[in-house]
Amino acid sequence: MPKGAPARVLEMVEREWGQGLIRSWNAEGWFDKPRSLGDRLAPLIGAGSGEVVVCDSTSINIFKVVVAALRLRPGKRLILSDQDSFPTDLYMIEGAMSFFEDYESRLVDMSSASGLKLALSDDVAVVVLSHVDYRTGLLHDMESITAQVHAAGALMIWDLAHSAGALPVQLEACGADFAVGCTYKYLNGGPGAPAFVYAAKKHHERAIQPLSGWHGHANPFGFETRYEPAQGISRFICSTPPLLSYAGLEAGLDAWDGVDLQHIREKSMRMTSLFIDLVRERCSVWPVEISSPENSQLRGSQVSLRHPNSYAVMQRLIERNVVGDFRAPDLMRFGFTPLYLKYTDVWDAVEVLRETLADGSWQGSRYSQRALVT
Amino acid sequence: MPKGAPARVLEMVEREWGQGLIRSWNAEGWFDKPRSLGDRLAPLIGAGSGEVVVCDSTSINIFKVVVAALRLRPGKRLILSDQDSFPTDLYMIEGAMSFFEDYESRLVDMSSASGLKLALSDDVAVVVLSHVDYRTGLLHDMESITAQVHAAGALMIWDLAHSAGALPVQLEACGADFAVGCTYKYLNGGPGAPAFVYAAKKHHERAIQPLSGWHGHANPFGFETRYEPAQGISRFICSTPPLLSYAGLEAGLDAWDGVDLQHIREKSMRMTSLFIDLVRERCSVWPVEISSPENSQLRGSQVSLRHPNSYAVMQRLIERNVVGDFRAPDLMRFGFTPLYLKYTDVWDAVEVLRETLADGSWQGSRYSQRALVT
Repeated sequence: MPKGAPARVLEMVEREWGQGLIRSWNAEGWFDKPRSLGDRLAPLIGAGSGEVVVCDSTSINIFKVVVAALRLRPGKRLILSDQDSFPTDLYMIEGAMSFFEDYESRLVDMSSASGLKLALSDDVAVVVLSHVDYRTGLLHDMESITAQVHAAGALMIWDLAHSAGALPVQLEACGADFAVGCTYKYLNGGPGAPAFVYAAKKHHERAIQPLSGWHGHANPFGFETRYEPAQGISRFICSTPPLLSYAGLEAGLDAWDGVDLQHIREKSMRMTSLFIDLVRERCSVWPVEISSPENSQLRGSQVSLRHPNSYAVMQRLIERNVVGDFRAPDLMRFGFTPLYLKYTDVWDAVEVLRETLADGSWQGSRYSQRALVT
Repeated sequence: MPKGAPARVLEMVEREWGQGLIRSWNAEGWFDKPRSLGDRLAPLIGAGSGEVVVCDSTSINIFKVVVAALRLRPGKRLILSDQDSFPTDLYMIEGAMSFFEDYESRLVDMSSASGLKLALSDDVAVVVLSHVDYRTGLLHDMESITAQVHAAGALMIWDLAHSAGALPVQLEACGADFAVGCTYKYLNGGPGAPAFVYAAKKHHERAIQPLSGWHGHANPFGFETRYEPAQGISRFICSTPPLLSYAGLEAGLDAWDGVDLQHIREKSMRMTSLFIDLVRERCSVWPVEISSPENSQLRGSQVSLRHPNSYAVMQRLIERNVVGDFRAPDLMRFGFTPLYLKYTDVWDAVEVLRETLADGSWQGSRYSQRALVT
């Protein structure tokens, strides 16, 4: 949690809500939060002003851009995505595709160098990929993949959930068409903080997304009967933003002021390499396997380890304040937020892992029986 | 703002987020908030346990239930709604209809007693109506309208934005199929607080909504490739909830513990009648017209006044802390939240209105030129 979060959120609750009441829609810029926070976030993902809005969830934003993109490529009936996508991306694509008869969704093996190339064809309308694989941490080359997709006549949608705030992202320079992502991982916006959506300027005029709520209307306070999309990125906003959660994100974004993402990336690569080296050095007598790329250039800001009892081991680590994720079927995922983690944290985390494997205490974890975990 | 809001929100920020980190998804019940808050809200709208979830925005929830309802009535190609609906309802219907070829949306004049009757036919799949008209405050008879719609073979969706927390709502008893609403008006959940969606139990098995995110999946942590809707109301949840905003709503719901909505309704009718009487008594020398039903049984918890300079007058009232809405073209809307407003507040509000009209100070309001206002 950013140190400024409690004060910022409390200010919104007590002053903006409690005293300002609905006056704060204008006086405190509530109505413009999706745009103003989008503009603050834009430089962190290589986007321009007026190309990003903060709103809804990553899933809902995927739905918007998938439908908008399919409509921009009428006649093309294929959509490609990674078989290892975070599942909600696939579920939302499935939901969108349920409206399009005779369309087909195909899953590609993006861990294979030729996977995408083999799947691309004139029939492909849209490709949806995660910049960083949520399980292995494999980092895809945004520039070359976007170019490859464009060469086939398709549009490119990137999911930045595991890269925004972890490494430099250059949406504009890579020519990406659309992107979505969450703000509650490396950007530290708070639990379930609002997501973002990017649309390249070239698509602003023609892209039509179907969640056409009043905050995306050209004249929201005209209370007209028919929907007319706003000019620019605003048409990707749907409706009233959950403002307390925006206040959390503001505290998160404050922490990014003046930060150079190239420094973040360098520190991140050193941290994940250090982690891998230390795990090799100190944990190799147990059945622990590195599941992330060895080459730090190909790795996001996370390292996944495979162990036959990953679930129970991770629960024990969490009990000891080394908080990672279990990801089915057998991965322990460790995320490294270079903005505020220290190298000593990496050292300590591996030491806790070593102790946990050495003393077998994970077998006594109250979670050694598998239970629901996020 | 409920008095408990700052402490509850701060607790979530500092303890659940700052100390609990992602452990709070289980330990603090974050993952279940859409369901647990839905169950707390259910009695306030006459719904049963397991029939309501709190999630997303009213607009997005309208999209979900409109599509689900259209799919439950294949072959029927008409959707009816009120020409005076809050516009976002109409815009979301338009967005949903954009996927359905040869379907038609028709607007009905619900201020006419025979408007709906004339429009109903065998071709109607769904009717979407607001329980209370957002401009005039006209309250519709949920029971008889739902019965009429069912008799025509159509499904009934109610928007409760202007009735939830203002008067008793009996969704189950009236046989409503679906309902949506916001929690930031009479329920006092905070600015942009998450919305709710109700689906009658009879539809839980067959209703399929298209915003099929992972939190609505039957096995969200199985990370499966294909979407399989959860059993019950959970399939209407899409994705990660913006939790700080849920904390605000929890404070709002705390204030409703043990409140009898029948008492709320009685007080509400007395307050709105008092307001109308006082406006007549004290403001009739100016061109002020009552635009809400005279019969309190036909009125929600709001009164709208018409005045040639409504916009400027309302801005002046707001400057003097009588905070209402301007609604185009010429309405001043006054909402009465019976849970905490006093009769003296009503008296004082009319006195401020009288003074404002008498001294003409609205002409000097910094808002006398029309500007953006929510």
